[in-house]
Amino acid sequence: MNKSQIESEFRKLQDYICGELELLDGKTIFKEDAWTRDEGGGGFTRTVTDGNIIEKGGVAFSAVHGEVSDAMKSQLAMTDGDFFASGVSVVLHPKHPKHPIIHMNVRYFELDNGTYWFGGGIDLSPHYVDLRAARAFHLSLKKVCDKYNPEFYSKFKVWADTYFFLPHRNESRGVGGIFFDNQNENSRLSKIQLLNFCLDLGREFPVIYREQIEFKAYDTPTLEELKWQALRRGRYVEFNLLHDRGTKFGIYSSGRTESILMSMPPMANWEYNFTPEENSEEDKTLKFLNGKIKSFL
Amino acid sequence: MNKSQIESEFRKLQDYICGELELLDGKTIFKEDAWTRDEGGGGFTRTVTDGNIIEKGGVAFSAVHGEVSDAMKSQLAMTDGDFFASGVSVVLHPKHPKHPIIHMNVRYFELDNGTYWFGGGIDLSPHYVDLRAARAFHLSLKKVCDKYNPEFYSKFKVWADTYFFLPHRNESRGVGGIFFDNQNENSRLSKIQLLNFCLDLGREFPVIYREQIEFKAYDTPTLEELKWQALRRGRYVEFNLLHDRGTKFGIYSSGRTESILMSMPPMANWEYNFTPEENSEEDKTLKFLNGKIKSFL
Repeated sequence: MNKSQIESEFRKLQDYICGELELLDGKTIFKEDAWTRDEGGGGFTRTVTDGNIIEKGGVAFSAVHGEVSDAMKSQLAMTDGDFFASGVSVVLHPKHPKHPIIHMNVRYFELDNGTYWFGGGIDLSPHYVDLRAARAFHLSLKKVCDKYNPEFYSKFKVWADTYFFLPHRNESRGVGGIFFDNQNENSRLSKIQLLNFCLDLGREFPVIYREQIEFKAYDTPTLEELKWQALRRGRYVEFNLLHDRGTKFGIYSSGRTESILMSMPPMANWEYNFTPEENSEEDKTLKFLNGKIKSFL
Repeated sequence: MNKSQIESEFRKLQDYICGELELLDGKTIFKEDAWTRDEGGGGFTRTVTDGNIIEKGGVAFSAVHGEVSDAMKSQLAMTDGDFFASGVSVVLHPKHPKHPIIHMNVRYFELDNGTYWFGGGIDLSPHYVDLRAARAFHLSLKKVCDKYNPEFYSKFKVWADTYFFLPHRNESRGVGGIFFDNQNENSRLSKIQLLNFCLDLGREFPVIYREQIEFKAYDTPTLEELKWQALRRGRYVEFNLLHDRGTKFGIYSSGRTESILMSMPPMANWEYNFTPEENSEEDKTLKFLNGKIKSFL
């Protein structure tokens, strides 16, 4: 299982996810934008807009290599040498406020000294928290995790709760999910098993999102709901630009800005000290997101 | 000239600016929100929405004191002791895309070991760059600077060009302005002269903004112009959350989030790899903002 095989599997995964999301949406078609990196490698960024379901989304693939940079040394505690990194990232901003924002990422990293690790995760940010939908989401993640290691789900769930958190709001970004990094021999799985875990997660992604979309039938959104959606998108921006390690690392280390910021929402809003009406759906969501997320299972 | 006098001058400045901006807008009225800080001090955040001219804006005053925190030590290279800080900050997001976003800040900081410094600045971020309006803006700033020190304008203008820059876009945030920090005896001005410089700048602010608003009469904005405005607001968000030292310092040191993020725009948009039509007004602005800003005078 060498790096070019991993790269090729990730590229196929991107293709698979895009195909499934086009079927789910029924209207929008991904556009592909190929780019190269001066220092080595490149990627294919695929984006959609104005779908039936997806208002703005992206499924990005990249495979880059070259010398370990200063930014990588300081951020990833790495030493001199050459690296290879490949991965697939997805962020979808749905049109309907009752549909959740979703994020998925799987990635592989290796150094020429032979060390390697996998990372990734899936997390869900509903504009309106629905506990039953959140439970279904976590059950699906647990099922994939349990196929590989019975400890993965509980470990990676806590990791997501800690990671997808906005300290300056004392708010969870959403209902969590799973997040993992630095997985290699230490996970008691072989390299190929870890790759398969990542690929399984990726292939499960469109199934999981379809389940969320089809969870309930919703009416045409009200103006109040659309306004709330724009405010929650503002929070998503805050997380990505202030706290998301991938985004910050990419931006500060001269990554490709447009591919990194593919995760940004359409039409995000900020309103000074917005406080929802007591006991409204918005208020319930805000109270639920306050502090760290508890178990759903 | 002690700290409580400075605090009281800054509070009067906030009042003056709000009054002038209400006159300029002709419709919107500032709402004041008082807050206190557990560790000492507090502030009055004044915000407006849905005016004739101003779609969303804020004029914030704060005066805080207490022990130097770890965050301050690491970010401001300070040592143990007590501090006092007071200032006024303004950010205005206009409704019309042909009107510019503007930002102003004056601030004072002192430590109980007797050291103190003033900082601040005004900068302009037009959605559409108009060279004549930018020149008028810089002339007004130069006039205030020249009253105090003939070197201020050229020095503080370069400081603003360096500071209000988005490296990940290779873009200036706008047409610049002036920015300064750490001004005390080293500026060859006395403490009271520096305070007067800050107050003069602050009092000039509404005059400067009125000049920008009245520079030209504009038609009802087109959909294209409104779309471009939302994209430029997205860039403003990127600067504030990724690069602005005040915002980052405030957020990471547990400042009051709502007051810090008062600077966020309404309805900011991101579009993957948006490229304006060749030679359009949007294209001209983008080309102008590419790289560092040159002289206007």
